[in-house]
Amino acid sequence: MRLRLLTGNPGKLAELQAALDGLGVEVVQDDRGYPEIQADTLEEVAEAGAGHLLATGIEPPFVLEDSGLFVDALEGFPGVYSRYALDTIGNEGLLRLLAGVPEPERTASFRADLCYIDADRGVHHFAGACPGRIAEAARGSGGFGFDPVFVPDGEPSGRTFAEMDLAAKNRLSHRGQAVEAMKAYLGKAANR
Amino acid sequence: MRLRLLTGNPGKLAELQAALDGLGVEVVQDDRGYPEIQADTLEEVAEAGAGHLLATGIEPPFVLEDSGLFVDALEGFPGVYSRYALDTIGNEGLLRLLAGVPEPERTASFRADLCYIDADRGVHHFAGACPGRIAEAARGSGGFGFDPVFVPDGEPSGRTFAEMDLAAKNRLSHRGQAVEAMKAYLGKAANR
Repeated sequence: MRLRLLTGNPGKLAELQAALDGLGVEVVQDDRGYPEIQADTLEEVAEAGAGHLLATGIEPPFVLEDSGLFVDALEGFPGVYSRYALDTIGNEGLLRLLAGVPEPERTASFRADLCYIDADRGVHHFAGACPGRIAEAARGSGGFGFDPVFVPDGEPSGRTFAEMDLAAKNRLSHRGQAVEAMKAYLGKAANR
Repeated sequence: MRLRLLTGNPGKLAELQAALDGLGVEVVQDDRGYPEIQADTLEEVAEAGAGHLLATGIEPPFVLEDSGLFVDALEGFPGVYSRYALDTIGNEGLLRLLAGVPEPERTASFRADLCYIDADRGVHHFAGACPGRIAEAARGSGGFGFDPVFVPDGEPSGRTFAEMDLAAKNRLSHRGQAVEAMKAYLGKAANR
């Protein structure tokens, strides 16, 4: 099967290719843009994008990916608008919003959604979530986005994502979990 | 002419009706929803919504309205995502983001866009902007949204929008300006 991944990010392409390689799935990059709607959930954003792509003639199967950081004390902000928040208020702004909020209330999660449209236009969502906490200050220079302020649960040394190497981060990451869920589904589908 | 206004807000309907009444334009409310995309400008959001409505069979002419608060020190945040920011971080969050920012750097503007699709599917934008500053603390109980933290320029007493009565606010407001611009355009068009 030849599967389009809608992304401008070669790193995401490589990750999905590596995961699906053993299933006989050839993942190819499709970097056409599509509108992202304003909505409360990643699933809604991805599904509306998929609908737009189908209406404008894309050939399924294809996959969209969306992810974001959801901070509990901020009612889920910045959520589906994480990229915009990063470009405007940045890590510093997020820390300001949480100034004085004690550690137990600084819970947050990185979430990812892979929206897979199969050859029959069936819609499938594969979700991943990495729970954690917002640090008191930005730390580390790896990763990207809000990685310097996010401390994942299950990381005994309390490192932020930006202080971890890629392999360690991928073991915990929301996107890796979503990719694994999709891989499991396609593996089962191939054996039916 | 019968003109649909896409809104769920009876206040906005009444405002446009009052403005266009003398031009023989009957403004009717159309409360069907439409997707708002993630974009940098109000114009892009409105125009994408209009395209969706046309594609799904709405009969022009119609008008969409979008507005937001753009804070200069925050690279325009919350901008087109003002409603989401209000529902999550609120006025308190906005004040936190600007903590320690001195008064001359607290400039901001409320902006509105009316996107008018005429009977021939021509697209017209009518913009309004109200420059001002973000106050050091929320004040007043009138208005809605970010009104309690916004001090418009040209208000010598330094009141926030939430401390002004509706008539005083409307004289300065972004939405009122956009409505006036649309009225002027339709008035000229009627006399051609």
